[in-house]
Amino acid sequence: MEEPLLLQHRDDRGVVTLTLNRPQAFNALSEAMLAALGEAVDALANDEAVRAVVLGASGKAFCAGHDLKEMRTEPSLQYYRRLFAQCTAVMLSIQRLPVPVIARVHGLATAAGCQLVAMCDLAVASREARFAVSGVNVGLFCATPGVALSRNVPRKAAFEMLVTGDFVSADKACALGLVNRVAAPGALDDEVEALVASIVAKPRVAIAMGKAVFYRQIEVGIESAYEDAVAAMACNMMDPSALEGVQAFIDKRAPSWSAAQAAAT
Amino acid sequence: MEEPLLLQHRDDRGVVTLTLNRPQAFNALSEAMLAALGEAVDALANDEAVRAVVLGASGKAFCAGHDLKEMRTEPSLQYYRRLFAQCTAVMLSIQRLPVPVIARVHGLATAAGCQLVAMCDLAVASREARFAVSGVNVGLFCATPGVALSRNVPRKAAFEMLVTGDFVSADKACALGLVNRVAAPGALDDEVEALVASIVAKPRVAIAMGKAVFYRQIEVGIESAYEDAVAAMACNMMDPSALEGVQAFIDKRAPSWSAAQAAAT
Amino acid sequence: MEEPLLLQHRDDRGVVTLTLNRPQAFNALSEAMLAALGEAVDALANDEAVRAVVLGASGKAFCAGHDLKEMRTEPSLQYYRRLFAQCTAVMLSIQRLPVPVIARVHGLATAAGCQLVAMCDLAVASREARFAVSGVNVGLFCATPGVALSRNVPRKAAFEMLVTGDFVSADKACALGLVNRVAAPGALDDEVEALVASIVAKPRVAIAMGKAVFYRQIEVGIESAYEDAVAAMACNMMDPSALEGVQAFIDKRAPSWSAAQAAAT
Repeated sequence: MEEPLLLQHRDDRGVVTLTLNRPQAFNALSEAMLAALGEAVDALANDEAVRAVVLGASGKAFCAGHDLKEMRTEPSLQYYRRLFAQCTAVMLSIQRLPVPVIARVHGLATAAGCQLVAMCDLAVASREARFAVSGVNVGLFCATPGVALSRNVPRKAAFEMLVTGDFVSADKACALGLVNRVAAPGALDDEVEALVASIVAKPRVAIAMGKAVFYRQIEVGIESAYEDAVAAMACNMMDPSALEGVQAFIDKRAPSWSAAQAAAT
Repeated sequence: MEEPLLLQHRDDRGVVTLTLNRPQAFNALSEAMLAALGEAVDALANDEAVRAVVLGASGKAFCAGHDLKEMRTEPSLQYYRRLFAQCTAVMLSIQRLPVPVIARVHGLATAAGCQLVAMCDLAVASREARFAVSGVNVGLFCATPGVALSRNVPRKAAFEMLVTGDFVSADKACALGLVNRVAAPGALDDEVEALVASIVAKPRVAIAMGKAVFYRQIEVGIESAYEDAVAAMACNMMDPSALEGVQAFIDKRAPSWSAAQAAAT
Repeated sequence: MEEPLLLQHRDDRGVVTLTLNRPQAFNALSEAMLAALGEAVDALANDEAVRAVVLGASGKAFCAGHDLKEMRTEPSLQYYRRLFAQCTAVMLSIQRLPVPVIARVHGLATAAGCQLVAMCDLAVASREARFAVSGVNVGLFCATPGVALSRNVPRKAAFEMLVTGDFVSADKACALGLVNRVAAPGALDDEVEALVASIVAKPRVAIAMGKAVFYRQIEVGIESAYEDAVAAMACNMMDPSALEGVQAFIDKRAPSWSAAQAAAT
């Protein structure tokens, strides 16, 4: 019996861990892997009980990007357009998920694997992890990973990584803005859990509304951005959770999100 | 007799210090405070004698954001839209002021208080200051502060602050780009004064034209940005101050801005 | 016999070194210098044998920006618009060049000299180099340099440099994102060469396609950016170099770019 390409684990808080599970191939994003990841993310998008997603991987590497062997089988322009479009759709679905997605990067993340990290909302890396957009080494400029990378790190740093294909360390990736936190290898899960615990302690609706407006507003001019955010925040404030949260703050007590939601229904 | 919500001090150089003065409420941005700040900023916008604005605060905190007690009194969607729109108008008026605005952050700056710092052109923080967009802790995602924050710091760092509500230290805020300089608490005023002195030593017209084009060009594509900047800079160069400044440089003497302006009128 | 304003050297790899050569004037960008640089860059744009450009300078300074003496000769709005438009065209031609341009910054880079560094794709600085957008010191806000600077470094840092005119060190410039690497003065050429060697080891077509899409995608929303990058990357993958590179990776051998290109023609 074969192991599934993507492992799923859900805890009783609604925290889902997705684990890329093709360790012998450094978790390369074959079409089957992209399909599995895309389906899993899409299913989570409609599941109100989910609160956060952790994206990790099995084996030595986090993810080595596309499956080059598969890519070389039947070269055609249409095939490559379809393949990169499929990959892009999966990447964007991560950003569109209503709950935060945290990359748990324990090892090497290259090309579309590095892009995965960049597209997650948050990323925690082991000090042993390394990052590269290394397609250029085989003559394939990481154009789509560059879209994500250049929205995470300063322009010249992104360009250097893209034309040299060089690795950067976890500490450098953190300094550049590609990952949020770096942990000793043995403390990686604790650091991920700290972010997860912080997220699940907040009302789901506030996070979902906030994540959506965050990515919308960042793409437009500051006045349009504010208009959008004003509307979203007013809406958020009318939610029973926020009304309870603010009241609890005034009363100097801990908020009860579940009571607020129950009272509202 | 009650103390005013906003203190104003102007020195003989035209440097105006605005001090949020509701220390017992951590200088929360009540509607009255927002109105006072908005009116003060608008009045300064038309005052040609003003050269720079320092925005500070009384008491232990810099600013704790919205006044949650007031916000909870009469909850309605219209009210919240109006409140957040009022706050946004004040925030944008800081960016539209023709003179630079420097945040002097001596203590905690949270939610809309952190947004105030982000919307100022420059910010100097005491090493004891701390920053958070902590609305999410009461169930209210800091959507509008996020507009300002995500235009100051890298994307993943902004997202982390917004979903966790966690504090970052002054040093971290400086490394991220939210503040320009960090000072020992006793040296905060000296550090602010260094920026102020540098600004008032330049011709007002150059700074005003420059600030306006800076925020316009940053929002458009690079070619449009350059078109705008070319026109602004040519215009700036025809100003008597610039002609005098360049001539003084050639003559290896200090420029006389006042003589240049007098000769022009 | 007069020395040329711009020295050109090309090695047998197709690496072109352009050297601003007006050392007694700190390599100021006079109209003649801008014309020489613009013509050189334009000529390289159509030369398929060129693989990378290094932009350096003679004498003590890298580049002190516009030639203030020349600028002061015949002040008129039309003249200044034309001058700044000429300068902008040269700056943009660097970004449009199909090969990477590396600034080799050994000394002071101010105003349009700092802009040159910002507009290059990559920059290596000597630890002794210093950077400023210092026009404001003579009453001329560096509006056009600000376009480039604000696309390299965080917003508040850019604003501070523009209104104060203060120098930042090479290390600070590196931390901000304005330069990629800082080297001891004696190691500057080695550090530049490391980038050059990395670039010339890759297929030209991948770098050219990648550079073009990098600067296009960074200016648009993330979905349009991905659409553009998907098309470019699919196209890149159909190039004989990429097909050879991927095959070589699968075969665990070094790729032979020249054989791939020869087979294709």
